Amino acid sequence: MSDQHPEIDIRDLTIIGGGPTALAAVFRAGMHEATARIIEVLPNLGGQMTALYPEKFVFDVFGLPKILARDLAKNLEEQAFQFKPDIHLGELATNLRYVETNGAKLIEVTTAHGTYHSRAAIITSGNGIITPRKLPNERAEAFEDKGIVYAMQRKEDFRDKRIVIIGGGDSAADWVLNLVDIAAEITVVHRFDTFEAHPASVREIMQLAGRGRVKVYTSTVIDELHGNERLEAVTVRDWRQNLHKLEIDALLPMIGFKINLGPLAQWGLKLEDKHIKVDARMRTNLAGVFAAGDVATFDGKIKLIATGFAEAAMAVKSALEYMRPEQKVKVAYSSITGLPIAKI
Amino acid sequence: MSDQHPEIDIRDLTIIGGGPTALAAVFRAGMHEATARIIEVLPNLGGQMTALYPEKFVFDVFGLPKILARDLAKNLEEQAFQFKPDIHLGELATNLRYVETNGAKLIEVTTAHGTYHSRAAIITSGNGIITPRKLPNERAEAFEDKGIVYAMQRKEDFRDKRIVIIGGGDSAADWVLNLVDIAAEITVVHRFDTFEAHPASVREIMQLAGRGRVKVYTSTVIDELHGNERLEAVTVRDWRQNLHKLEIDALLPMIGFKINLGPLAQWGLKLEDKHIKVDARMRTNLAGVFAAGDVATFDGKIKLIATGFAEAAMAVKSALEYMRPEQKVKVAYSSITGLPIAKI
Repeated sequence: MSDQHPEIDIRDLTIIGGGPTALAAVFRAGMHEATARIIEVLPNLGGQMTALYPEKFVFDVFGLPKILARDLAKNLEEQAFQFKPDIHLGELATNLRYVETNGAKLIEVTTAHGTYHSRAAIITSGNGIITPRKLPNERAEAFEDKGIVYAMQRKEDFRDKRIVIIGGGDSAADWVLNLVDIAAEITVVHRFDTFEAHPASVREIMQLAGRGRVKVYTSTVIDELHGNERLEAVTVRDWRQNLHKLEIDALLPMIGFKINLGPLAQWGLKLEDKHIKVDARMRTNLAGVFAAGDVATFDGKIKLIATGFAEAAMAVKSALEYMRPEQKVKVAYSSITGLPIAKI
Repeated sequence: MSDQHPEIDIRDLTIIGGGPTALAAVFRAGMHEATARIIEVLPNLGGQMTALYPEKFVFDVFGLPKILARDLAKNLEEQAFQFKPDIHLGELATNLRYVETNGAKLIEVTTAHGTYHSRAAIITSGNGIITPRKLPNERAEAFEDKGIVYAMQRKEDFRDKRIVIIGGGDSAADWVLNLVDIAAEITVVHRFDTFEAHPASVREIMQLAGRGRVKVYTSTVIDELHGNERLEAVTVRDWRQNLHKLEIDALLPMIGFKINLGPLAQWGLKLEDKHIKVDARMRTNLAGVFAAGDVATFDGKIKLIATGFAEAAMAVKSALEYMRPEQKVKVAYSSITGLPIAKI
């Protein structure tokens, strides 16, 4: 719509991405009485929390001792929605350029569905377009969604199932620990002899293994997949070349993700190892374009939801300073008074 | 105790301060299986949230759309307590120095009650020792706690009271808005003609004034305090030199705070405008001493609870890198698995 009348919905900020950092940025913008728009490629808000682990508990968002990822996403939406952001889901931002409209320098972001104008932009696209790394075995593709599951949505789907989880990183470890009370059997198959997951997770899994709750095969690889319509069993080969055939209901390859920055890699942003380089104020090399959360990198960067939140606050402040150079941006503490809420 | 046997309780981290940033630091330390100690001068944890506004709602901690400051403090305590920090309340850290114990270089923090050793220290002392700025009128001291209230604890104490709030900043505005539904009458007296409070707060107050819910005197000062045992009335002088006598139950001077860094100003830390200067990794100029939260300043600093949390995560990571130079510090995501909890 707005490509015919770009003047009718110029927002202060276009936020590319719809995860926790994006929602935090909408909230911070609202606190400063700035208007925001979200453009998210996924069909839902919440980013990885909604897309990858909605039923996992999150324990380390400060102030929330334990919350389901899905509920955390809902809370963040509730906070952001108070400020009535313009939300476009299922749209991939393909292009970003500067345009002049009625003498004002604006940023124009294009998707297949629309052209959007704003005074500044914040990129919070997280790890970008994430696709799970597929199992390289030749029959793996045939069993996809017929026993082989890459993207878990509901823990309940695994109740009383015999599960093999492949991998030794945090995703594998997390899912072992999340499913251990639900599944009938869990076997971990890892190609190396040490786990890359967080040491505390590894210790927990080893304790479970010691109590017979989890089976662990290290230095072991998948040798063969068995089944007709559905995957029914898997043969694994250990480091002594011994083969073990395991009857299973589900195989969860947790062997990493392919990360793809997507079209924004072509926008002229300074990148560093597939991330957008920002300074301490979340400024990219493009004027009026800021980045925050997992997509942004700088000296000392820590990828946590909590740091994404803080970076969102910083990016919004910097965007306001860019948009309103004549004003000193006062930190908005409606934390305390809750005031500008629902006023925009 | 530990001054006789300093070797018996060497913690990885001594955290000076007990507010939200300190509690977040304890949690992040725990996620990395590092042990922590808190030294807090106040009798309670929670910092300003507990000491200054326990009954106010906080709206801008991301993921928590609305929570009482007191409850937020409790949640943060719950998160931190999982890792069994050593907590010393009501103790002022008077000295910090380096000592050698069994060949290890440690940091020693001293209070009137003990001497504490740790491998690193994080200063999260917020705005330091905060004392409300006192009303300069000559009878003000006599009426302190007899009608003049500097530190509000319970909103209920003001139910059906006639209140004058002095000031035009965020504290004044916050309390007007917090008490408007409880008090019988609220009058704001501000010496200038514009308010420094957040514009949305000011607009809200002006709307309340328009509806007769709040009275606002700008360019007006306190002329005289009346009463025998207790404060009973106040005379204010407006910019036309007209005098108005107001019968009141309580006078709340919200005319700012005196901030005092306390003894740490003498520890050799590089300071900037009463804050501790840190780099982007929260390192102070003293090796092994980090700072985070409101006490820390750096380019682009925003004073928010949410940014304090992120700075706590960064300070803990930097402290671990200092303490364990041989190890690469892996970001601990137990957000997702919640694992090392209660293991320390």
